[in-house]
Amino acid sequence: MVFATHSQAWGSKVRRSAAAARDKPLLRPWRARNNLFFRGGGEGRKGATIRISTMELPVTDLREGSCGGKGSEAPRERRPPVSVAAVLPAGGSGERLGGCTPKQFCALLGRPLVSYTVRAMERISWISDIVVVVSPENVEVMKSIIKKYGHKRTTVAEGGMTRHRSIFNGLKKIAESHLLSSPLQKPEVVIIHDAVRPFVEEDILFKVVMAAKEHGAAGAICPLVSTVIASSADGCLDHSLDRAKYRASEMPQAFLFDIIHQAYHQCSDYDLDYGTECLHLALKYNKTNAKLIEGPPDLWKVTYKRDLYAADSLIKDNISQQVCVLTNMKEDAVQVGFLLHETLKSHVKLVKAISTSLCKNESHLQNILLGQCYNFICINDNLSNFQETHQLVEILENTNASLLYSVVLISVYLDFFENVSFISAMQRFTKFAKEVEKKNILLYGLSIHYQKDNLKLQETMDSAAALIMALIRDRNPAYVGQLLVA
Amino acid sequence: MVFATHSQAWGSKVRRSAAAARDKPLLRPWRARNNLFFRGGGEGRKGATIRISTMELPVTDLREGSCGGKGSEAPRERRPPVSVAAVLPAGGSGERLGGCTPKQFCALLGRPLVSYTVRAMERISWISDIVVVVSPENVEVMKSIIKKYGHKRTTVAEGGMTRHRSIFNGLKKIAESHLLSSPLQKPEVVIIHDAVRPFVEEDILFKVVMAAKEHGAAGAICPLVSTVIASSADGCLDHSLDRAKYRASEMPQAFLFDIIHQAYHQCSDYDLDYGTECLHLALKYNKTNAKLIEGPPDLWKVTYKRDLYAADSLIKDNISQQVCVLTNMKEDAVQVGFLLHETLKSHVKLVKAISTSLCKNESHLQNILLGQCYNFICINDNLSNFQETHQLVEILENTNASLLYSVVLISVYLDFFENVSFISAMQRFTKFAKEVEKKNILLYGLSIHYQKDNLKLQETMDSAAALIMALIRDRNPAYVGQLLVA
Repeated sequence: MVFATHSQAWGSKVRRSAAAARDKPLLRPWRARNNLFFRGGGEGRKGATIRISTMELPVTDLREGSCGGKGSEAPRERRPPVSVAAVLPAGGSGERLGGCTPKQFCALLGRPLVSYTVRAMERISWISDIVVVVSPENVEVMKSIIKKYGHKRTTVAEGGMTRHRSIFNGLKKIAESHLLSSPLQKPEVVIIHDAVRPFVEEDILFKVVMAAKEHGAAGAICPLVSTVIASSADGCLDHSLDRAKYRASEMPQAFLFDIIHQAYHQCSDYDLDYGTECLHLALKYNKTNAKLIEGPPDLWKVTYKRDLYAADSLIKDNISQQVCVLTNMKEDAVQVGFLLHETLKSHVKLVKAISTSLCKNESHLQNILLGQCYNFICINDNLSNFQETHQLVEILENTNASLLYSVVLISVYLDFFENVSFISAMQRFTKFAKEVEKKNILLYGLSIHYQKDNLKLQETMDSAAALIMALIRDRNPAYVGQLLVA
Repeated sequence: MVFATHSQAWGSKVRRSAAAARDKPLLRPWRARNNLFFRGGGEGRKGATIRISTMELPVTDLREGSCGGKGSEAPRERRPPVSVAAVLPAGGSGERLGGCTPKQFCALLGRPLVSYTVRAMERISWISDIVVVVSPENVEVMKSIIKKYGHKRTTVAEGGMTRHRSIFNGLKKIAESHLLSSPLQKPEVVIIHDAVRPFVEEDILFKVVMAAKEHGAAGAICPLVSTVIASSADGCLDHSLDRAKYRASEMPQAFLFDIIHQAYHQCSDYDLDYGTECLHLALKYNKTNAKLIEGPPDLWKVTYKRDLYAADSLIKDNISQQVCVLTNMKEDAVQVGFLLHETLKSHVKLVKAISTSLCKNESHLQNILLGQCYNFICINDNLSNFQETHQLVEILENTNASLLYSVVLISVYLDFFENVSFISAMQRFTKFAKEVEKKNILLYGLSIHYQKDNLKLQETMDSAAALIMALIRDRNPAYVGQLLVA
């Protein structure tokens, strides 16, 4: 069995040695299970072994972390001592985006934005129910999204004409669940979070829930980026606010359920039609001064087209942090695998190397998938069949690994074009790639010119790593089935 | 001579006919000069001619529009009846970005952000001087940026410890220019604009300048995205502001030079050290209530890493709107060129087709370059030399076309792999591509399987167009010299 794991901070000049990585695994909460060996096959490295440990994953589903997460570190899940549900208003029309699709339904890497936000909530086990409030015409769309992406503990509620009316409907759906023989339970604390803020982390959710338990209401805030000014009736400056004294009110917010539910019951039509701030309702109708919690900058709301671009890039960033290199046991392939593994370490946080013989034991690969790996490099020494690639695709399909994110799979061939039958091999490869694309697996080919000269081989590896990183980072379906040359 | 131009709104289902495009050219200010013909070479289309006109460009440099511009429409330049200079504070440390490079010096498509903002100002002929204020340690960096990208009418000033002190230094540099025998002239109106807001358009600059002339001061504003709240001493909500009554103060701002210069002279150290709002100084020290002007959403400030991602995508969007297809006169190449041209029309705003024989007359290509075209497709029928590609590269180099943006050049070959000497051709191509990359020209190869069957050929064209659009949109140097297959 061949297995290696190695961690390095992106862009950091400090490289941990394999030994240090073993002694202080980055993924602290996981427990070392197996000590395995990577046998380098390169000249001068032949026979050298690097002893590295694999980790056992906690039972919680960590496949994703959050889409805006800090990489592969498993969160230490703290459970608030209260029952918690979440209401996600998703009824906006997306006017400011300038398109006709409301922003919460815009696709990022093929999946609607709202699904990312639902997933960010769903992966937190102490949130018992998630109610997504959408405009009546989008109820079926939302139900199909929940079904397609397998979201659990998630219910759809029909929204009203304004943001406040929609939130109120979500709260009513929870409060009246006993009348509707619904499985929803009235929680002690309810989180309110915009469907268009997909990068919410467990930490800030925990903090607002705990503060809501203590203060009745709580909300995330961020520093103001621009000065806020008031204008006079003639469109001139009346006064500007001291930026240091004010904050932007963001989401998530959390409330004792009864406080916010009663506030909505008591509030005026004017509030329901023109207000936007839930903390304001709790203050006005319940004399509850919400606790304000400094949030991270990733809480920002997807509002304009540029925000969709930013979200797209951040999601791609996040799922590009781990690569798994698979090799068979042939000498050349092992050497290329080893060198690629070493070269990629300066590009991504975590590179795992695994022998294809391990693939026969699906649980190993499953652990890698659970560890949020969406990028695989499969080194083949043989054009006639791409057995390893086929095998890996089958496992990825069986484990439903590409349900939420596309999986990038790069098939590496040594000296592809020197094979006499390369044209038919290329055609078969392209055909196969188009097939697996339907499963959200993006398959690309990469031919590496294998040379005995170590220096030249390293140059080729640098070029290969640059191509691999570009394919992984772009995740562009247009290049599926193409064969690049390093 | 063969030339065609055709316009279509991105994503629009309405296709203008070539005749309509001729009658109502999209680029209104240009004057029709030549009537040329595109000879379709395809089966069934053989001999069909489309009569289309080329346009004469105005003298003003329109190569770029602005990086956030609305495509290729030439702005109708209005000149304010006052002299105008601009001060760009660029002294920030970029703390919020989380990196060590201050954001104004972060590279977008290889060029520092500040250069985009300088260019947005520089292309407006009625701004006579641009003063970029940078921290002392970045003066030489800024000077080298100005030299490298050939920025005109741009001077560097040394900044102070805070934003206000930096702006004041910029104003002093202008006011005291007569003492320093500097070529700067004190203007009637001065624009103040952040170096990290690269997407500023001529329209809003004109508006703030005109309003400053009338009111003494003016500034761009945008609606608030989040509610603004005030907190009490214990970190709880004190009150929230009615979002409808407040605005975010953005840039650009403009002032009668003497008003803002005097305000800075009079203002307190506290203002200079803790203030951020220039409009506030004009109000406090000159009783000038600035006119507030609703600005477009693109005025936003690059603050966080996500903003760099967004800016990168928006710039790429903008320079991907025009493609020029060059063909030689061989029948197969002409047919492929014609079909590609037609297929690409549903992907980009403007596709131009041009015969390579035209390349011999550089002025035609120069017109296309001036029309903000940064993307070229060159159709070759012959592997042994890539004469057309060489020729085009030479012209691009001679005209310095890739100074500000990388130029994408896609060399199309018919049935590349069926040529016996394809391996050596591929090597020569890759080597050539690496050479021209040094000139900021990104050269990619594309092999098209040429088939007589019209339906199959169209399928191939759809696949080719998808690859071409991906290469143009991504502008990824990692794929330079690769040969893709449609």
